Amino acid sequence: MKNLSPLQIERLKYQPKLPSSLAEGITRLVCKEGSDTESVANQNEIKQLFKNTYGKPTVTFSTSSDLQTFEQKNVGVILSGGQAPGGHNVIAGLYDALKQANPDNKLYGFLGGPAGIIEGEYVEFNDEYINDYRNTGGFDIIGSGRTKLETEEQFKKSLAVCQKLNISAVVIIGGDDSNTNAALLAEWFAANNSGIQVIGCPKTIDGDLKNEQIEISFGFDTATKTYGELIGNIQRDANSAKKYWHFIKIMGRSASHVALEAALQTQPNITLISEEVEAKKMSLASIIDYMTDIIVKRSENKKNFGIAVIPEGLIEFIPEMGAMIANLNDIMSTLEKDGNYSAASQSEKFSIIENTLSSDNSKVFSSLPALIKSQLLMDRDPHGNVQVSRIETEKLLISMIEEKLALLKSEGKYTGKFSAQSHFFGYEGRCAFPSNFDADYCYSLGYNAFALISFGLTGYLSSVRNLTAPASEWIAGGVPLTMMMNMERRHGEMKPVIKKALVELNGAVFKQLEANRQDWAMNDKYLFPGAIQYFGPGSVCDITTRTLQLEQSKKLLNV
Amino acid sequence: MKNLSPLQIERLKYQPKLPSSLAEGITRLVCKEGSDTESVANQNEIKQLFKNTYGKPTVTFSTSSDLQTFEQKNVGVILSGGQAPGGHNVIAGLYDALKQANPDNKLYGFLGGPAGIIEGEYVEFNDEYINDYRNTGGFDIIGSGRTKLETEEQFKKSLAVCQKLNISAVVIIGGDDSNTNAALLAEWFAANNSGIQVIGCPKTIDGDLKNEQIEISFGFDTATKTYGELIGNIQRDANSAKKYWHFIKIMGRSASHVALEAALQTQPNITLISEEVEAKKMSLASIIDYMTDIIVKRSENKKNFGIAVIPEGLIEFIPEMGAMIANLNDIMSTLEKDGNYSAASQSEKFSIIENTLSSDNSKVFSSLPALIKSQLLMDRDPHGNVQVSRIETEKLLISMIEEKLALLKSEGKYTGKFSAQSHFFGYEGRCAFPSNFDADYCYSLGYNAFALISFGLTGYLSSVRNLTAPASEWIAGGVPLTMMMNMERRHGEMKPVIKKALVELNGAVFKQLEANRQDWAMNDKYLFPGAIQYFGPGSVCDITTRTLQLEQSKKLLNV
Repeated sequence: MKNLSPLQIERLKYQPKLPSSLAEGITRLVCKEGSDTESVANQNEIKQLFKNTYGKPTVTFSTSSDLQTFEQKNVGVILSGGQAPGGHNVIAGLYDALKQANPDNKLYGFLGGPAGIIEGEYVEFNDEYINDYRNTGGFDIIGSGRTKLETEEQFKKSLAVCQKLNISAVVIIGGDDSNTNAALLAEWFAANNSGIQVIGCPKTIDGDLKNEQIEISFGFDTATKTYGELIGNIQRDANSAKKYWHFIKIMGRSASHVALEAALQTQPNITLISEEVEAKKMSLASIIDYMTDIIVKRSENKKNFGIAVIPEGLIEFIPEMGAMIANLNDIMSTLEKDGNYSAASQSEKFSIIENTLSSDNSKVFSSLPALIKSQLLMDRDPHGNVQVSRIETEKLLISMIEEKLALLKSEGKYTGKFSAQSHFFGYEGRCAFPSNFDADYCYSLGYNAFALISFGLTGYLSSVRNLTAPASEWIAGGVPLTMMMNMERRHGEMKPVIKKALVELNGAVFKQLEANRQDWAMNDKYLFPGAIQYFGPGSVCDITTRTLQLEQSKKLLNV
Repeated sequence: MKNLSPLQIERLKYQPKLPSSLAEGITRLVCKEGSDTESVANQNEIKQLFKNTYGKPTVTFSTSSDLQTFEQKNVGVILSGGQAPGGHNVIAGLYDALKQANPDNKLYGFLGGPAGIIEGEYVEFNDEYINDYRNTGGFDIIGSGRTKLETEEQFKKSLAVCQKLNISAVVIIGGDDSNTNAALLAEWFAANNSGIQVIGCPKTIDGDLKNEQIEISFGFDTATKTYGELIGNIQRDANSAKKYWHFIKIMGRSASHVALEAALQTQPNITLISEEVEAKKMSLASIIDYMTDIIVKRSENKKNFGIAVIPEGLIEFIPEMGAMIANLNDIMSTLEKDGNYSAASQSEKFSIIENTLSSDNSKVFSSLPALIKSQLLMDRDPHGNVQVSRIETEKLLISMIEEKLALLKSEGKYTGKFSAQSHFFGYEGRCAFPSNFDADYCYSLGYNAFALISFGLTGYLSSVRNLTAPASEWIAGGVPLTMMMNMERRHGEMKPVIKKALVELNGAVFKQLEANRQDWAMNDKYLFPGAIQYFGPGSVCDITTRTLQLEQSKKLLNV
């Protein structure tokens, strides 16, 4: 008998909901083509790079009374990049559709991310294997990895592995970069007449893989609800003890979607949005002024407590910090090969860096607390860049606010008490049990991916839309990956990539924060979302994010 | 219309369960006296100090067919100390019983903790006020505070406030210290013929207020489940990405009950227990050896990831650290008044301290990373002691393990990769929506507190036992506070205090960890508890902690 938690035992029994167009079964589908598509920008370049897969129509599925039969087919699946709740359900949906189409079909899972298809490391799924992972969090079913799938050599190796296993379609579950890779692989397979299809699925808790065709990436719903739970709990604590300011940094990479959604769920006193900081060219000093002003005003109302929500990527969006970090990335690759630097003590390293950076950037660097300086010099990421997520921006802000408040106090402009606690939430939410929404959405995405395969499509992203309606009314179909692409500079070269979505400052979601934040800053309008519920009333268990609700209702108004 | 989260709206409707002895209503109770009691130790001293309240019998309630009537009565209630989920339900249960007894009864809530009764800051509850807080987390209904209630002057002020409001009973909801204060106040009120009763309620997420009479303090269930959720989510992430060691420090003050319970819920690779460290006189070096050994062995099995759970109070239980911190507490009170010290830079402060500490302690201090040194010198607590909870023990361990692994690598004894993430969970769990268990238990404790009042008792702790059985079978009654007391040295003086419960190394709970930890260290037996559920199957929603289950089943075996 396996050792499972009580919730896990119950969640294994949950049957995810499908759109009604898919619910009749894979054998009843008809595929309707929309009009031909163009990429969002750089149409000529993209068309040139994707000769075989560019310009295809969008498709949607509906149900027919005719019964289809399917030839035997083997499919491979890859989990790529960071974890997001619901990945296991994508695989379960794909498996169920594939076995429904033909019980002799086989589903292979490549191990450890894209490396698995290159190295030929895989498992074959069966009912028992899959059933242990239904409606669970994590990517541990086959593991994940961050290997990029983009070179000719990698494509050739992948082809050989697929041919060995007689695989005629590959499903890549990943974010914008992984789906860019899916598009490249699809094109290469097509150009080489391999007969192997490639389908992508939109994954990322960061919420930055969305556009006109993709309403939301999976995992965003569950992750933001988990962070909302924690922020809400801390707000209740702050409002009870009335003695701490809590500075809460939230994962989400460059974009602030996650912080914004978590803030709409909880209504904290301060929410910083990286995209706004960049657009308004806010310096670190002006951010400190903005925050300190609220802290002082609350203190005048006898509120020496509060909550500030900070997006993970903030620091890079502060103009002078972004410039300094870019300069630092440049000089570090040389410095790290320098024996004198490597042998230097920490404070000597700081001096070397201050002498190597340009004058403006040197001033910015030297103004930072030692803790932050040392974090800037920690291990680089695989691209040789500062690992921004490891910089404790929340502590940087606290220490600068402390200095500023001390100054105000000496000038008689502040008489309060400022005591701060810092938090960083990220890993807590990436592998939570998927919410009912993510469980249903992911299962549908996986099921739908096989539908796309069964109609012979390649270079498509599995698409399920109309997500604020009940699952039965969701619209299942596919979008050509090239449709979402444009050309961007990466490592000095122009490359075709799927365009990342940042927070739109004139969008309905940010406007909601903007319209309310002054009120939330001074008058405690804290909301307490509590833990994700799986079994209770629909009003609690089946609602999706504020982000999606606002984006969709805005669309309705514009129609 | 108030702005509430969907869960909050639904939870307000939840009707907490009562023991069947209380469920017939306050008008149907009979009070059965047990035998007279003695304090757990120092009987003569405690008897001397509590002449009027010592030696009273325990009581239990049952139901009679006779209907009682009640004279009008006003009661005051205080929330004392750190937040714990369910405090609002104690007040709701107390309010409901009080209004059931006589609709003209009044319940006053003292604001901001014990300071409220001293300063005469209060609110009067009514249905509307109470209904907004049913089954919610936090202590924000009236706020809490840490003022100690122990001087003659405080007692006199409290008496005057109670007399002004015609209050004839006070309920103090708090931990061991607050209930010690409740005993002192009860005795003083009795000695001064005030006619005012005092009843305590056992609160603390730390779980260290328990004994033969009190199975568990409220809040422990919800808080540990919240931490269990987060540890489980991080374990799933670690097991998916397979690249980080997560070091997770868990709140709980001195005792390791919370870390131990969270570990039993999640089965991490490493769990440190402060009480074991102290009993075995484990040095910091030997703890590092123990952890490094597991990290190296896992690495040999290609597992460069894992989870370590660390109790908040660990550092004080490491013999040489405890001694150094005690020495530091002594010298700092003098140093902080010294202008030379105050004006010194951080590194100068370190030198001054190293020259002032005794030789052994100086060595320990100087061996620590600068980050930890500076945390040791931060603001003291109200008793002038180092705030142990603000020391990032998790980072100290990581940095010392990194050093040790570098050494082993240089000796060819380690070839793995160690990349660590640190977390501290505490505030996230103290104000969660109470679990069904805590919602029921707290409501029962509050209801039962009024039952004790209605029978004219004072100096009692509200007691609800048999808690692993369904709520209908719980046993409601009262325990004299003096029964749980002994004499302990506090600030150089012997004082009567309620004895704190630490983890018993020969108890069933620790034995469960001990019997399994080698297996959990190497073979990933992670459990994923997921978020607290309020509406689902009883197997998920209504079970209480492993700690209580193990303690109670052991008792059954011993009978």
